[in-house]
Amino acid sequence: MNKYFTSILRICLIGILALSWNVNAQSDEDVLSTIYKTSLTNGQSYAWLDYLSNTIGGRLSGSTDAELAVNYTKAELEKLGLDKVWLQPVMVPKWVRGQKEKAYFKSLGTHNNVNICALGGSVATPNDGVKAKVVEVATYKDLEKLGEKNIKGKIVFINRSWKQELVNTFQAYGGCSVERYRGAAEAAKYGAVGTIVRSLSSRLDDYPHTGSMGYGDLPVDQRIPSAAISTNDAEKLSKALKKDNNLEFYLEMSCQQFDDVQSFNVIGEITGSKFPNEYIVVGGHLDSWDLGDGAHDDGAGVVQSMDVLRLLVESGIKPKRSIRVVLFMNEENGLRGGRKYAEVAKQKNEKHIFALESDAGGFTPRGFSFDCSDLMFSKIDAWRPLFKPYLIHYFEKGGSGADIGPLKNDDIVLAGLRPDSQRYFDHHHAANDTFEHVNKRELELGAATMTALVFLIDKYGTETISNETEIKD
Amino acid sequence: MNKYFTSILRICLIGILALSWNVNAQSDEDVLSTIYKTSLTNGQSYAWLDYLSNTIGGRLSGSTDAELAVNYTKAELEKLGLDKVWLQPVMVPKWVRGQKEKAYFKSLGTHNNVNICALGGSVATPNDGVKAKVVEVATYKDLEKLGEKNIKGKIVFINRSWKQELVNTFQAYGGCSVERYRGAAEAAKYGAVGTIVRSLSSRLDDYPHTGSMGYGDLPVDQRIPSAAISTNDAEKLSKALKKDNNLEFYLEMSCQQFDDVQSFNVIGEITGSKFPNEYIVVGGHLDSWDLGDGAHDDGAGVVQSMDVLRLLVESGIKPKRSIRVVLFMNEENGLRGGRKYAEVAKQKNEKHIFALESDAGGFTPRGFSFDCSDLMFSKIDAWRPLFKPYLIHYFEKGGSGADIGPLKNDDIVLAGLRPDSQRYFDHHHAANDTFEHVNKRELELGAATMTALVFLIDKYGTETISNETEIKD
Repeated sequence: MNKYFTSILRICLIGILALSWNVNAQSDEDVLSTIYKTSLTNGQSYAWLDYLSNTIGGRLSGSTDAELAVNYTKAELEKLGLDKVWLQPVMVPKWVRGQKEKAYFKSLGTHNNVNICALGGSVATPNDGVKAKVVEVATYKDLEKLGEKNIKGKIVFINRSWKQELVNTFQAYGGCSVERYRGAAEAAKYGAVGTIVRSLSSRLDDYPHTGSMGYGDLPVDQRIPSAAISTNDAEKLSKALKKDNNLEFYLEMSCQQFDDVQSFNVIGEITGSKFPNEYIVVGGHLDSWDLGDGAHDDGAGVVQSMDVLRLLVESGIKPKRSIRVVLFMNEENGLRGGRKYAEVAKQKNEKHIFALESDAGGFTPRGFSFDCSDLMFSKIDAWRPLFKPYLIHYFEKGGSGADIGPLKNDDIVLAGLRPDSQRYFDHHHAANDTFEHVNKRELELGAATMTALVFLIDKYGTETISNETEIKD
Repeated sequence: MNKYFTSILRICLIGILALSWNVNAQSDEDVLSTIYKTSLTNGQSYAWLDYLSNTIGGRLSGSTDAELAVNYTKAELEKLGLDKVWLQPVMVPKWVRGQKEKAYFKSLGTHNNVNICALGGSVATPNDGVKAKVVEVATYKDLEKLGEKNIKGKIVFINRSWKQELVNTFQAYGGCSVERYRGAAEAAKYGAVGTIVRSLSSRLDDYPHTGSMGYGDLPVDQRIPSAAISTNDAEKLSKALKKDNNLEFYLEMSCQQFDDVQSFNVIGEITGSKFPNEYIVVGGHLDSWDLGDGAHDDGAGVVQSMDVLRLLVESGIKPKRSIRVVLFMNEENGLRGGRKYAEVAKQKNEKHIFALESDAGGFTPRGFSFDCSDLMFSKIDAWRPLFKPYLIHYFEKGGSGADIGPLKNDDIVLAGLRPDSQRYFDHHHAANDTFEHVNKRELELGAATMTALVFLIDKYGTETISNETEIKD
């Protein structure tokens, strides 16, 4: 009996060893193959995005829909069998658009309605609107030359063109976004009564694109309303001004800034089996602008990040380090969620070794940009061949994501998913950032690509002397 | 005076030398930069595609719209200042869809309308349709096992699933397309009265996707009608069959095959300055299916190919070899244009060194696949770094394009543009292959990428011993 028992025990032990060997023996190629296959055949991100976009909708910070999104994603994370799911409180600004904006200009006997929207953070016009002449500039930097005599009492129209020749559309956006953010504050200094800014979009159409703006240290009583105008209407207005420099523009907006309100980052965690006190973060931002349903910006990043943890579980991967999904609140107009998460992590002395953000749309992933040392980048770049079957080719040093920025220190590696950027600014912050413009496979490829990188970072760590890592791990 | 004349002559000569040196001194990097910038800021392909899609529309071989497309593209090429533009006659099949198809099934007291379309080349049903029971198979290969006793008098429903895990969607398509092409011919052998084939699409929706089918050597009186069913309805029908194996399916189609009609390939040429008898071809196919407007398949390839010649001219490039744009007729249901072009080239003993086809949609270009020797591939692959700024990374050996296939011999290098493939089969051969699903920048990046490759091939030739080429050139 004893002998029999020993035999059974031996067989069991061999079985267990063989099983664990089998799991360990899985090559990185095999693991990546499993991850991609799981995402493309059994992904969850598209269904989550459908709900977030079509049942909830746009999720501006402080709104009821943002609150619904917090509750929904928390509940969905709780279904995944993670080790922890919780809400992290954060106070956020509450800005409300109010009534749909109105704008038109009258010139040479014609009445021309104009597609505009208030920029996020703008003050309203008086109830009966603002009616004024228009002075057009290519950039707010031209205001100084024009001076108060040419600007006072007028609406400043900043019509900065988009550099179509830049293959990376984020570079073109980066070149123009300062006009939207600072335009009103600068124009107010010279006595302007309002600003209208050409939409930051890569194409000619009728959608105005909102986005954040700020008044800096401008006293409250000097703040002037600021709106974005669609690219088609910017072209039309510019042409009209060439013929009639005295045309009159009417602008009416009823937006309003309220006191800060309570909101939350949503966090889920798989606790590490070997180094539970080393943290890897993957995230996107849960808030969005209010005009569309925020499917690309950043519903896609939210559901992809949630799916990273699900795909790890589904693919049978047991992370050594703690993997957290963080759905940040208030990226668009405050970055309060990103700052709060970093603040709490610092208070708790949590060692974050890696953070990855997806906030560039749910398009076909091309790779990542990394904010890290050259040595670390070399280590990561050596994984590039593993991604070749999935057409992931872009591994470059560069920025990561706004929400994870506050985590930056000398030790952490930050990364941003880099999807194809050609269509992003057709939709960004506009009423056409909607679910039907997200392709299921493109979204799922992004989730798989993020999961693959998280898997490799977890497996090999972020130590740059690889032998040391091997021994340590 | 003589001395003065000599001085002038000397200055002129120096000037000419400096000028030619300057042109030659333009690095390949500079030339590619000019090509991409010109395409993105001053492209013509999108406007051409707008006309081809929205003013003309679907261009099925033998139709009036195909004829309009021939005339339009010829006229547009004539505006470009090419050396020659001409029409190459080719007889093409004429198949007409007729009335919109009708289909439904009745099961357990429910009436269910079904989205179907006739496959190109199919015979019609009788005027009062076909009503029959349905036998479902996963592939036509299962028919043999079922045998006549289970098939005779029924409609065969081929419900082959799409391999979502394949990152390259063309591989998934390639796996299924035989079902569409051969399904009816195989089912007819066992006495089936019709076939309905699951649409070859990467997503679940209500669009049926047409495409070519053939009866092989099946006698005319044994031919049975064949239709594609939308993926949503394929799922619905399959579920219904599980509950009610005796459900009745009704199918009504009035399509018709006519005698061949006269049509044309449209050809434009820039005659080479140094090797006018060496030909480089760039092309796409002018015909399309009739359900949508054929914007992706293959309006995009047509306008990109036209733009290659325009971009060479606009970028100040004077090709050494003769560059031809060929807009092939009848790729979809006959390949007559591709065969005719190769036949004439052979008759005239024209030395074709390179042919490039764009026929995979107007999406963001990722690179090319090349059908050539390993040695030639190495030569081309060495150019890959030149394309890195434009995020072109995919250089692989593989297929090229259906229309240029007939040109294949031991000397020619064949290539296919490889755009991102994730969305292609959402639209392919369906009513939603329309202009609004083509992004301007993605289309223009494709045109630039093709132009860049044509420029390099023209400059460096396709000799594989590079020194020899350098001396020769």
